[in-house]
Amino acid sequence: MSLTRIHNFSISLDGFATGEPQTAEAPFGHAGQRLHQWMMATRFWDAGGSDGVDNAFAERHSHGIGAEIMGANKFGPPASRDDLDWKGWWGPNPPFHTPTFVLTHHPRPSLPMEGGTTFHFLEAAPAEALEIARAAADGQDVRIGGGATVVRDFLAAGLVDHAHLVQVPIVLGRGVRVWDGLEALEDGYDVEAVTSPSGVTHLTLTRKAS
Amino acid sequence: MSLTRIHNFSISLDGFATGEPQTAEAPFGHAGQRLHQWMMATRFWDAGGSDGVDNAFAERHSHGIGAEIMGANKFGPPASRDDLDWKGWWGPNPPFHTPTFVLTHHPRPSLPMEGGTTFHFLEAAPAEALEIARAAADGQDVRIGGGATVVRDFLAAGLVDHAHLVQVPIVLGRGVRVWDGLEALEDGYDVEAVTSPSGVTHLTLTRKAS
Repeated sequence: MSLTRIHNFSISLDGFATGEPQTAEAPFGHAGQRLHQWMMATRFWDAGGSDGVDNAFAERHSHGIGAEIMGANKFGPPASRDDLDWKGWWGPNPPFHTPTFVLTHHPRPSLPMEGGTTFHFLEAAPAEALEIARAAADGQDVRIGGGATVVRDFLAAGLVDHAHLVQVPIVLGRGVRVWDGLEALEDGYDVEAVTSPSGVTHLTLTRKAS
Repeated sequence: MSLTRIHNFSISLDGFATGEPQTAEAPFGHAGQRLHQWMMATRFWDAGGSDGVDNAFAERHSHGIGAEIMGANKFGPPASRDDLDWKGWWGPNPPFHTPTFVLTHHPRPSLPMEGGTTFHFLEAAPAEALEIARAAADGQDVRIGGGATVVRDFLAAGLVDHAHLVQVPIVLGRGVRVWDGLEALEDGYDVEAVTSPSGVTHLTLTRKAS
């Protein structure tokens, strides 16, 4: 069975998954890289990195995934929307290696990249986008890649089977908050928390058997 | 040196320390007792309770405290403001056992209770209230007892030396949020997190040596 999964989705103590404002130079606004330092210090990101609990979680990002869905703000800053020369933040070989569906109100032609990533641009509601990505995933799982608005929309629509969030001990104060509109989310999920020596707290939400 | 401390201050994943609406029957609104079940299951609360990490944190509430400051909503629901028969939620012997200062726009005469608690009613800004409570604490520490608005105001004013927050794995969605207006709070504090087998995550913020 093909699942819908979220991995390595980092938030502040106050629930912001990104700061503001987003620009080409600052994809996470005033948050900078602070939400993701825990991940950059793991072997998943850097061959010399740590191989403990942070890495065990981080590595799951890649395993068994056949497609990703991301929001327009993960693909590029607002100023890039109609710029066909913008090819994402990641250079010629993005770290997705599968069909990757960008939800946008500014669709453009599909964009094949090196390493197996092809960006497709969709104007679609979550359920419809998931159906398309599921077909492209060829039996493997679909990853919801963020940002916060997309994660929230898919959680609110009841489309997520497993979510891994990483709470970083900083207070961002402003940006985009992931929890809004998700009252009683725990009713549908088993929630676990585990802290890491790095100082972050890994939260997993696993859909309860129905 | 007399410190200013916060203990057992429970919040949801989305940072709400209470739900809504608050009434005499529901001090925490739609949150019910869900934010405090972890504490009620400890020996601190119930002689038959657990004696692990949750209890180790819970017990600190009482040690070395000479006065408490609380907000008007911790003392009573909005409808009780001008009711001199309202003596708090806790019966004749409240669990404070020290002078307890209630910040309110509706001051009333001081109210001695059994067990060492005397409620005093103050219309004062955080720094001024703290000065008064500090004098009453007679060399011991002052506890900031909540609710969320009072905790937030004292943190924002830089008056807190140590804060213990307990994150409960539920999404409340609405109520009063503790983190608002505290951007970059971590700059002044060492933050630790540890999870408990009960499922909650204990967060401590300890003011950095200056």
